[in-house]
Amino acid sequence: MNPSDKLRELGIELPETAKPLASYVPSLRVGNYIFISGNLPIRDGKLIFEGKVPVDLSIEDGYEAAKIAAINIMAAIKGEIGDLAKVKRIVRLNGFVQCSDDFTMQPNVINGASDLFVEVFGDIGKHTRAVMGVNSLPLNSPVEIDAIIEIME
Amino acid sequence: MNPSDKLRELGIELPETAKPLASYVPSLRVGNYIFISGNLPIRDGKLIFEGKVPVDLSIEDGYEAAKIAAINIMAAIKGEIGDLAKVKRIVRLNGFVQCSDDFTMQPNVINGASDLFVEVFGDIGKHTRAVMGVNSLPLNSPVEIDAIIEIME
Amino acid sequence: MNPSDKLRELGIELPETAKPLASYVPSLRVGNYIFISGNLPIRDGKLIFEGKVPVDLSIEDGYEAAKIAAINIMAAIKGEIGDLAKVKRIVRLNGFVQCSDDFTMQPNVINGASDLFVEVFGDIGKHTRAVMGVNSLPLNSPVEIDAIIEIME
Repeated sequence: MNPSDKLRELGIELPETAKPLASYVPSLRVGNYIFISGNLPIRDGKLIFEGKVPVDLSIEDGYEAAKIAAINIMAAIKGEIGDLAKVKRIVRLNGFVQCSDDFTMQPNVINGASDLFVEVFGDIGKHTRAVMGVNSLPLNSPVEIDAIIEIME
Repeated sequence: MNPSDKLRELGIELPETAKPLASYVPSLRVGNYIFISGNLPIRDGKLIFEGKVPVDLSIEDGYEAAKIAAINIMAAIKGEIGDLAKVKRIVRLNGFVQCSDDFTMQPNVINGASDLFVEVFGDIGKHTRAVMGVNSLPLNSPVEIDAIIEIME
Repeated sequence: MNPSDKLRELGIELPETAKPLASYVPSLRVGNYIFISGNLPIRDGKLIFEGKVPVDLSIEDGYEAAKIAAINIMAAIKGEIGDLAKVKRIVRLNGFVQCSDDFTMQPNVINGASDLFVEVFGDIGKHTRAVMGVNSLPLNSPVEIDAIIEIME
């Protein structure tokens, strides 16, 4: 199934790509790759989840936060190439979880992004990833996820 | 000397590549590059070192942990291209050290991986790297290391 | 304006590239890309800023620290290709800020690097980036920044 159709079936609407406000850009195409900046669980300009996992929000909420960050990554991809069907491979996700010092289940949080990529893109959505915990993230966000995407020539 | 011969001389046997259990994969070849997911000091399915450097384990043990993560990265490379002699360059290592807030010797820990890459691959094992401390890692692992490898056409 | 002229106008002199002291290298050219290792705010072999933002140094000092790291990245680029005018695009910056657990303004710190890249390179200096807080960095450095650069063929 086409990724756009799959998103529709899942009831997910991609937002407009955020306008760059500074010296950096949300995404950049170089050759057949798209580099995606770090994405937060922002919707309609507002951070939907806040705080450290699992103190301020549950692992389940962290999973939802990672899913929203993934939706923003997909929006950025669409903004670069117009049609998600031109994606050749989701190459890489880096997922950072803002968490307490003794939290060790970061993968369960970032799975919210990884699972959505596979649900929407199928096998070409399967990616390499690195998942780390950190003591603090911009805006007190519980997750930040960046990506590298390969696109068709 | 051939990297495989060098590994044999060092008495290092590469494990079988871990089967992917989730939406992500341990490694991915795109063009002439192999992207490697974050690797932990896991051997035979078990985390060999645990905790924060230098509180729960010494810098020397952290060095050994980084070495085991590097062995797992080499196993992933071999899983992708069959023969380590096809490696053109170790391009990049990112090394994260789970540590106390006042620890500042993360490079001495990640050297366990860097040194092994140069020992096994010689000059083409010399890589760029970024090394950071973090407050927590998956499974309470003391280190996590990911990589980008260039391979021959 | 040529990036080298711009640097001169800003009164910034690029240092000599640091000699590699270990198994890793400060930069590496692969194809049309230059990978840059994690850079600290080091000048003349000395760390210019130290500690955690905003406890040990202000956001403004963190901004300056990020700027010095960016100057070191530019020196590494120049060391690889001789002439900064051969840069096609600053593709990626990853910025890590050593900070307290409740600090949430990491972007304001790393802007010290992002702003300088745009000031020196103009539109081709606009990059993707990911910015994270961490509890500790090598040498007690307040920032660490790595990069990927695209160069002309």
